Amino acid sequence: MAPLYLALVHYPVLNRKGEVIASAVTNLDLHDLARCACGYDLPGCFIVTPLKDQQALVGRLLNHWCEGVGREMLPERAEALRRLRLVESVDEAVGQVTAECGSAPVVWASSARGGLGVLSYSSARSHLMNEERPCVLLLGTGWGLVPSLIESAHAVLEPIRGVNGYNHFSVRCAAAIILDRLLSMPICGEIV
Amino acid sequence: MAPLYLALVHYPVLNRKGEVIASAVTNLDLHDLARCACGYDLPGCFIVTPLKDQQALVGRLLNHWCEGVGREMLPERAEALRRLRLVESVDEAVGQVTAECGSAPVVWASSARGGLGVLSYSSARSHLMNEERPCVLLLGTGWGLVPSLIESAHAVLEPIRGVNGYNHFSVRCAAAIILDRLLSMPICGEIV
Repeated sequence: MAPLYLALVHYPVLNRKGEVIASAVTNLDLHDLARCACGYDLPGCFIVTPLKDQQALVGRLLNHWCEGVGREMLPERAEALRRLRLVESVDEAVGQVTAECGSAPVVWASSARGGLGVLSYSSARSHLMNEERPCVLLLGTGWGLVPSLIESAHAVLEPIRGVNGYNHFSVRCAAAIILDRLLSMPICGEIV
Repeated sequence: MAPLYLALVHYPVLNRKGEVIASAVTNLDLHDLARCACGYDLPGCFIVTPLKDQQALVGRLLNHWCEGVGREMLPERAEALRRLRLVESVDEAVGQVTAECGSAPVVWASSARGGLGVLSYSSARSHLMNEERPCVLLLGTGWGLVPSLIESAHAVLEPIRGVNGYNHFSVRCAAAIILDRLLSMPICGEIV
């Protein structure tokens, strides 16, 4: 099994005008992604932001839930939020995974827009089941990852398509669906 | 194809002490569920709350995004949020579906706790593909639907199990995973 890490990228991402920005951290993104990371037993989920005030906010939140009153009130939330790791950049996330796993990870980008060279869920799942090289899946906030991040990734995971072409999912819901498709027990034999 | 409706229930649900409460509406729940409902082309998603102030809040939010400035700024969000329907009770939701479809719906409850008489995803999917009787899937907020709602449902959908027993997902992420399992195109033949 190849370990899969998530990275929730707040910089560099696009805003709705297509400009490069650092987006604000959303409290519920951290909770939801941590809970998903825990449910699918990921070794870690990186929260990527170079902004000091946003880093401080994430630090406070993690401290509250992992060490403070929150931990006593809701221990299973602490269990989840401990999987989050605050980093300055995608490079720092990749560096941590390399150090932890002993080999540089395969980097997968995700995008709501399809394109050439798209990695299917079956291929991604096959890598996770049969390879050992770790993977980092980049999730964009705002209007998505900047083109340079998508182009420098080893592959772009195919967009989640609904049943009618509308695929404007929140990053929280998209992450949940992607993890379920990649890592859930094969319930598909019964489904099809 | 049987039409599937969601109902996000804020009353009656449990709090963490097991008491029956009316939970507060969470802004991002409405956005995320509407976007999922749109992506999987559901005819509607009911927001169930008997509290007048919460109804007013939902009304303001829908007005902003479906009619006001929000619609101009982000038309695809209006397209999604138009699927939401504010109702007082689960009974009112069931009544609307009955009137709309010409037959009373099958009611499915969802729960993070397993139990007897659990409906598998394959059976639920088979119903949706092969039957005509509409379905309403109840999603609990807070600490979940009250036992009486679960007992009065026709079936309880099996819990989402992660890979390690932790299944404390947010209702947003749980709804996304459930809809993807029930309604996504069969990608499973390639996956297994």
